[in-house]
Amino acid sequence: MPRPDGPHPDELLRRIRELDLRPARDATGHYYVEGLRQVFCALDANLPLELLVYCEALAPTIAQRRVRLARREGVRVLRVSPEQFRSVSIAARASGIGAVLGQHWSSIHDADPAGGLCWIGLGVTRSPGNLGTLLRTADAVGVAGVIFLDRLTDPFDHRVVRASMGGIFGLRLVRATHAELADWVSSHRGEVVGASPRGDVSYTDIPLRTPLVVLLGEEWRGLTEDELRLCGLTAAIPMAGRADSLNFGVSAAVVLFDLRRRARDAAATLRPGG
Amino acid sequence: MPRPDGPHPDELLRRIRELDLRPARDATGHYYVEGLRQVFCALDANLPLELLVYCEALAPTIAQRRVRLARREGVRVLRVSPEQFRSVSIAARASGIGAVLGQHWSSIHDADPAGGLCWIGLGVTRSPGNLGTLLRTADAVGVAGVIFLDRLTDPFDHRVVRASMGGIFGLRLVRATHAELADWVSSHRGEVVGASPRGDVSYTDIPLRTPLVVLLGEEWRGLTEDELRLCGLTAAIPMAGRADSLNFGVSAAVVLFDLRRRARDAAATLRPGG
Repeated sequence: MPRPDGPHPDELLRRIRELDLRPARDATGHYYVEGLRQVFCALDANLPLELLVYCEALAPTIAQRRVRLARREGVRVLRVSPEQFRSVSIAARASGIGAVLGQHWSSIHDADPAGGLCWIGLGVTRSPGNLGTLLRTADAVGVAGVIFLDRLTDPFDHRVVRASMGGIFGLRLVRATHAELADWVSSHRGEVVGASPRGDVSYTDIPLRTPLVVLLGEEWRGLTEDELRLCGLTAAIPMAGRADSLNFGVSAAVVLFDLRRRARDAAATLRPGG
Repeated sequence: MPRPDGPHPDELLRRIRELDLRPARDATGHYYVEGLRQVFCALDANLPLELLVYCEALAPTIAQRRVRLARREGVRVLRVSPEQFRSVSIAARASGIGAVLGQHWSSIHDADPAGGLCWIGLGVTRSPGNLGTLLRTADAVGVAGVIFLDRLTDPFDHRVVRASMGGIFGLRLVRATHAELADWVSSHRGEVVGASPRGDVSYTDIPLRTPLVVLLGEEWRGLTEDELRLCGLTAAIPMAGRADSLNFGVSAAVVLFDLRRRARDAAATLRPGG
């Protein structure tokens, strides 16, 4: 239930609807997720939770227990009718549970250079589906986080969040300028490796550095001149067939999983008796 | 121009429109592709070409030369008005060039066990986008072809063809029953390796056999019991993060590109001085 001193439920629902649009997300620093899977993932990740939206008539009983638990922990819960829930629903089937979350941005100064497998650097990514799939892969492969170089790209677009299948909740998300990224990498003696069809080396030969930033350019045009200047090296995926290039998310996955394979091999060699 | 004894242009256009639907594709063995990129790819691949559809007012001049060349080689060309072209168009922007192609199925008895990197076996694939991306990856990585075990899945759906970005044109496509696949593999002393989150081994340890069939199950449910029975081995992709599983096309790409890496390493070791 909204606190007695809080805004009226209809006003809250109106604000949630607005979160579909970038300006409202930017202004509030919030975003809305919906459905059992996404809301539970977000709760498990201990992300900043502003509000749970709950419709008892629509939600499965498993949601009820979780909502009660969250309320006991001080989370604000907005109980709504099915009509009210549907008025903010962004999903094909209204699931009866949604959450307004705070966008979990962190500063590049807090980025752990030794965290995870590596970091991903991103230029513009045009397709929300591509970005979501990338975040899903990045989380699965153990990437520390994603550094966004371009303000056009918004990982909190609901299509991105949905396609990430919960992956976005486990990643550090950083916005940085080209200069900030260059500073961070050089101060930690790391390297930026750009993914490019005309790469200097094969992706299987990317040196395992800490920190390592794998930089991905725009889906169609690839790395810009500014992005290329950040790279100490570029890497390509050698191909056999006629298909021009791989899908954006597919190429990223091929590069990242090979890094993971080699990092694990290297770790195994360093273990006593390994 | 249609031959004087051929059907009326309007009748041809009606038949092309019908190719949007599976029954017409199955009955005729034809499919329709549209756009400069797809039509040129298909022409380059020397696929069975039934008809070129060409609208001079819409198509870029580069298309004109190619159409003239094709006509000289005996290809039937249907010249249409912009309105007529748009009446069969399946693309967002009518490009002025399309082609009716024969579906290039081949028999499992003609499948080359030593061809390409490996073969892909497929159960049901529900999303045309997923299947298209898989075909794009398969062509890029050098797979010999794809063996379809389920008749539900139609690679000639225009959404699949489009997402394959020309990849479908370079692959052998085979329909086979489970028994036919089992016979083919055992008669050539090969192996079927199923991709499964509960796999016996890591994908990096899949033995390089010839022929090798990498079997992919349905996107959500994975391999069926019948499919599992075909597998001599199952392989998994070890993961780090919370995301339940990888996207269908992404996991296939990770497995296939690692096979390619190891096949190339093995070939290099066998070379004199390698």
